[in-house]
Amino acid sequence: MKTVSENRCFGGVQGVYTHASQATGGDMTFGLYLPEAAEDGAVPVVWYLSGLTCTHENAMAKAGAQRWAAEAQVALIFPDTSPRGEGVANDPAFDLGQGAGFYVNATEAPWAPHFRMWDYVTEELPTLLFNAFPLAEEAQAIMGHSMGGHGALTIAMSFPGRFKSVSAFAPICHPTASDWGRKQFAAYLGKDEAAWAPHDSTLLMRKRGFDGPILIDQGTQDQFLDLLMPEALSEAMASRRQGGIFRMQKGYDHSYFFVSTFMEDHMAFHAKAIYG
Amino acid sequence: MKTVSENRCFGGVQGVYTHASQATGGDMTFGLYLPEAAEDGAVPVVWYLSGLTCTHENAMAKAGAQRWAAEAQVALIFPDTSPRGEGVANDPAFDLGQGAGFYVNATEAPWAPHFRMWDYVTEELPTLLFNAFPLAEEAQAIMGHSMGGHGALTIAMSFPGRFKSVSAFAPICHPTASDWGRKQFAAYLGKDEAAWAPHDSTLLMRKRGFDGPILIDQGTQDQFLDLLMPEALSEAMASRRQGGIFRMQKGYDHSYFFVSTFMEDHMAFHAKAIYG
Repeated sequence: MKTVSENRCFGGVQGVYTHASQATGGDMTFGLYLPEAAEDGAVPVVWYLSGLTCTHENAMAKAGAQRWAAEAQVALIFPDTSPRGEGVANDPAFDLGQGAGFYVNATEAPWAPHFRMWDYVTEELPTLLFNAFPLAEEAQAIMGHSMGGHGALTIAMSFPGRFKSVSAFAPICHPTASDWGRKQFAAYLGKDEAAWAPHDSTLLMRKRGFDGPILIDQGTQDQFLDLLMPEALSEAMASRRQGGIFRMQKGYDHSYFFVSTFMEDHMAFHAKAIYG
Repeated sequence: MKTVSENRCFGGVQGVYTHASQATGGDMTFGLYLPEAAEDGAVPVVWYLSGLTCTHENAMAKAGAQRWAAEAQVALIFPDTSPRGEGVANDPAFDLGQGAGFYVNATEAPWAPHFRMWDYVTEELPTLLFNAFPLAEEAQAIMGHSMGGHGALTIAMSFPGRFKSVSAFAPICHPTASDWGRKQFAAYLGKDEAAWAPHDSTLLMRKRGFDGPILIDQGTQDQFLDLLMPEALSEAMASRRQGGIFRMQKGYDHSYFFVSTFMEDHMAFHAKAIYG
C-alpha cells in the first residue's frame, strides 16, 4: 500500500492510498479519514460509496463529512467506484464501465476480468483496512449516494450483522426495473435476470430487509427521479414494516449541495446506531 | 446576467451566474449563496476570495461554508480569480495570468486590457450584486484563501468602513518581498515598486491597519510558508496593536482540508462582527 497524500483535517488526517488489488486485478485508490481518536485506538467506521462518474475523491472533497466524523470520532472510508487504468475495459457512456462499477462482480465479457467491485468493497478492502489501520470491525455503518446508495443498501442487506445502520442519498432503488440498472446488469451480469435480483434494494427489502435502522434522503427536484424510483423502495420498506426513515426533501436536486446539506443528519444517525 | 445553475443547499440556494463585465472586458462568472432568510429581505454578505488556479467554483464546492452561512443567515459571494476566455492574455505558469489575477488593476502589456480584478471585485461586482439580489450593503465582511487572503486583507484595509471584519486562510502576507508577489506585480504593475505598495497587506498594516477585527489562520505544515511570509504580517499586526487574532495551526497544510476545518470559526467570527 502506498500513501498518495495525507492532509490534517478537523483534528484528524484525510489520507489517500493506493494498493494492488486481487479482486479487480489492478491498482485501486481509496480515501480514509481518521479522526484524532484513532491515535489512541480503534475507532468505528462509516463507509461512503460514491455515485456514477465519481472516484474516491468527490465525496472526500465535497460532502463535508469529515466535520461530523470528527465530532463523532468515527473513520470514513471512500472507495473508488470501479477499476481503472490500462487494460481495463470501458464504454463511452458515463453510466457504464469505468466510474460505473455498480458494486457487482461482472461475469460477462469484456467486464469480467476487472469489474469485481462487490468482492472489492465487501471483502478485499475491509480485510486490508482492518489490518492496516486502527478501525473497529465490530462498529461499522455504511452509506452512499445514487449508485453508491444502491451499493450501500444492497451490501447492508446482504451481510446481516456487519453494519449497525445504513443510509443513502438519492439511491438507485430499483435497478432491475430502471434504465439505471437494466442496461448495466445486462452488460455486467448477462441476460438471466435471476442474477440481477441480489443487487436490487427494493427486491432485497421485500425478501429480507435490514436488521437495523435505515435513513434515506431524496430530493423532490432531483433530475433523475424517474431512474432512481424512490417510490418502489419506500413502498417496500413500509410494506415490510422495516424500521427506517424515508425523507422526501423539498426543492433539493441530485448534487453534492444536496448531499452536504443532510450529511450532518446522516452522520448523527450512524453515530447513534454505533454508540447506542 | 445569466443563471448558470441554482441548487438548493442548506435551506437556501447556491447559484452560479455569468455577466458581461466592463471592468475586465469580457464575461465573468461568480457563485452566490443566498440563505433562506433572503426570501424575506436583505441579508448580510460575506465575500470569499479564492487562491491561485481557482475559479468561482473551488470554495463553493469544497470549503463547506454554506452550512455556517445558513446558520448565520448571511450570503456568500464567490468571485472568479481572473478574467478568462478568448483574447485574454495568459502565461504557462500557474501563478501568472488566468487564475492568478492577484486582485490588482494591471497597467502593463499584455495584461492591462482585461486584468482589472481590483475594480471588478471592489466596484463592478458589488454594484451589480446589490442591485440584483437582496443583500445588505451596510453589513459586509470579507475573507479569502492564499492569494484570496491577500485580496481580502488589502481590500478591507483600502476601504475603511465598508467591511465589519476581515479574515484569511494562509494569506500571501507580504508579496512585495516574496516570489508570490514580486513576479506578478512586476508583470501586472511594472517595475516601479511604489505601485506595488497598496497591494501588500504587511505594508498596509504598518501604514493604516483595519478598523475592525481580523482573524488569520495559517497551517504550520503549509508547503508554501516561505512564499506566504506570515511572520511579516503577524509582526506588523502586533507592532501596530491591531485588534485581531493570528493563529498558527499545528499540522495543517495549504489545502481545502485546512480551510474547511476552520471555516466554522471564520463564519462565526464574521457573524459576530456583523450582528454585534
